[in-house]
Amino acid sequence: MKNNLRNILITGGAGFIGFSLINFLKKPKTKIFVIDNYSTGYNKNFPKNVKLLKGDCKDYQIFKKLKRYNFDSVIHLAGVSSVEASFDDPEKDAKSNIISTLNVLRFVKEKKIKNFIFSSSMCVYGNLGNNVSENDITFPISFYGISKLTSEKYIKFYPLPHTTKVVLRLFNVYGPGHDQKSTKHGMVGIYLNQINKNSKVIVKGKLNRYRDFVHIDDVLTIIKKCMKISNKGFNLFNVCTSKKTYIKDLINQIFKIKNKKPKIFLSKNTPGDQFGIFGNNNKIKKFLKIKKFISLKEGLKI
Amino acid sequence: MKNNLRNILITGGAGFIGFSLINFLKKPKTKIFVIDNYSTGYNKNFPKNVKLLKGDCKDYQIFKKLKRYNFDSVIHLAGVSSVEASFDDPEKDAKSNIISTLNVLRFVKEKKIKNFIFSSSMCVYGNLGNNVSENDITFPISFYGISKLTSEKYIKFYPLPHTTKVVLRLFNVYGPGHDQKSTKHGMVGIYLNQINKNSKVIVKGKLNRYRDFVHIDDVLTIIKKCMKISNKGFNLFNVCTSKKTYIKDLINQIFKIKNKKPKIFLSKNTPGDQFGIFGNNNKIKKFLKIKKFISLKEGLKI
Repeated sequence: MKNNLRNILITGGAGFIGFSLINFLKKPKTKIFVIDNYSTGYNKNFPKNVKLLKGDCKDYQIFKKLKRYNFDSVIHLAGVSSVEASFDDPEKDAKSNIISTLNVLRFVKEKKIKNFIFSSSMCVYGNLGNNVSENDITFPISFYGISKLTSEKYIKFYPLPHTTKVVLRLFNVYGPGHDQKSTKHGMVGIYLNQINKNSKVIVKGKLNRYRDFVHIDDVLTIIKKCMKISNKGFNLFNVCTSKKTYIKDLINQIFKIKNKKPKIFLSKNTPGDQFGIFGNNNKIKKFLKIKKFISLKEGLKI
Repeated sequence: MKNNLRNILITGGAGFIGFSLINFLKKPKTKIFVIDNYSTGYNKNFPKNVKLLKGDCKDYQIFKKLKRYNFDSVIHLAGVSSVEASFDDPEKDAKSNIISTLNVLRFVKEKKIKNFIFSSSMCVYGNLGNNVSENDITFPISFYGISKLTSEKYIKFYPLPHTTKVVLRLFNVYGPGHDQKSTKHGMVGIYLNQINKNSKVIVKGKLNRYRDFVHIDDVLTIIKKCMKISNKGFNLFNVCTSKKTYIKDLINQIFKIKNKKPKIFLSKNTPGDQFGIFGNNNKIKKFLKIKKFISLKEGLKI
């Protein structure tokens, strides 16, 4: 393997977004390294230009294996990405999010990598709600929200004079390639899995809660564009459609597409669940010259 | 050892504040457990009512050794407490502060401990400066400041219905029992050590920087009073005198007490050094009915 290839490192590359990104980016001259511990990652059949390092970003050891390579971009997607799971084990959540991020930052610093992209979450906003912007105050109501927000703070603060930093606050990402087994992360995926399996949906929490659903294809386009930002600054963006969708409407749309009669059962909501949120996407639209986002109606059919 | 003693757990009990507290609290019927990893702790001759567990709070294992005991209060002082060291190794700082705090909180939850006290730091304020209050915005400018602030957030958020939480934002604590070797934490101690050893002081940073110096005896009185708070709420206090002291004046006072001619050498300031800060102590004075604090002039002689 030669050092002069265009190299990219994707942590969490076996997960939904990471694996989708690999397939989206693939070019024969791009070498992609993936770090994944398979705690929630589930994809295994990587294209030929991908090298998998099985291991955990919370131990710096894994990065030592990469020390002879140069990278153009690091996309840090690894980490427990479930609000519910963060309540089961806050320490695990903190290690997999905060400590991992510090290790990736150390690697970016040591290798003077020019571009660093981090997947944060709308969870940093907490229950603040409607049309939230990047400058709004953050008030997380889950361990997951706290660990993502802390990671953002470390990224902003970490002295990296050679690096363009990009933090993407992802709202509810959905689309093909989502985890087909998980019951704890990925709202659309959780409902789809249930409908496919049992033709019914158990909803944890009220039906009048609402979210901002952004299609994976939009997310991939955004990440690719962000890999080209070279302002050496800290760039913070909401990744969302600015559309408010009630959970009830989401589920009814899925049942309709599946041509099944809606069967919805309600149960208690999970701890740290945000009641309702949708974001303001003016900043990213302007900065990356994005004209439109895929609507939920279209997106559910892709 | 019987379970019905008045039991207290002090993490970081071999350090300056922890060890001073042990000697301040000692009563024959009080059993004190200490956890310390001796990474910066330096005291070894504990009184008879103290049981030392050598180990690290960032591994939950150490708490398992305490599972058969009940505790009335946990005073969590453990953690790397140096701004400078946090730049040398941000990951170590985060583990020793954030992850340790999460482990202590887990223990407090499992044992339903009624009183939990945490030593935070004025570093959470960053360069905001003069007469800072608990409600002021926080804007840390060091890894240490970020990790302490994150610990505070976790403490506030952690569901502990049985527990009174107390977070003390300690300003510059000084007094007898300070670390006589350290060059990286405890400003008064660092200067005293240098004067004792070489009759001169090397100051990292400008002489017109300023701080709020609070005597260890005041801190111990405050901790003891906080052990009796039982409002089951989250209590956040500045621990400071509200007096602004320039570094130059501090050093001159120390030389004067030592009856030596001031010899001051300046060097580059350390990363993350706050230029100037002093706190507002109205909240703690009112809440704990404190009439006055020991002045620096008095305190340096104790």
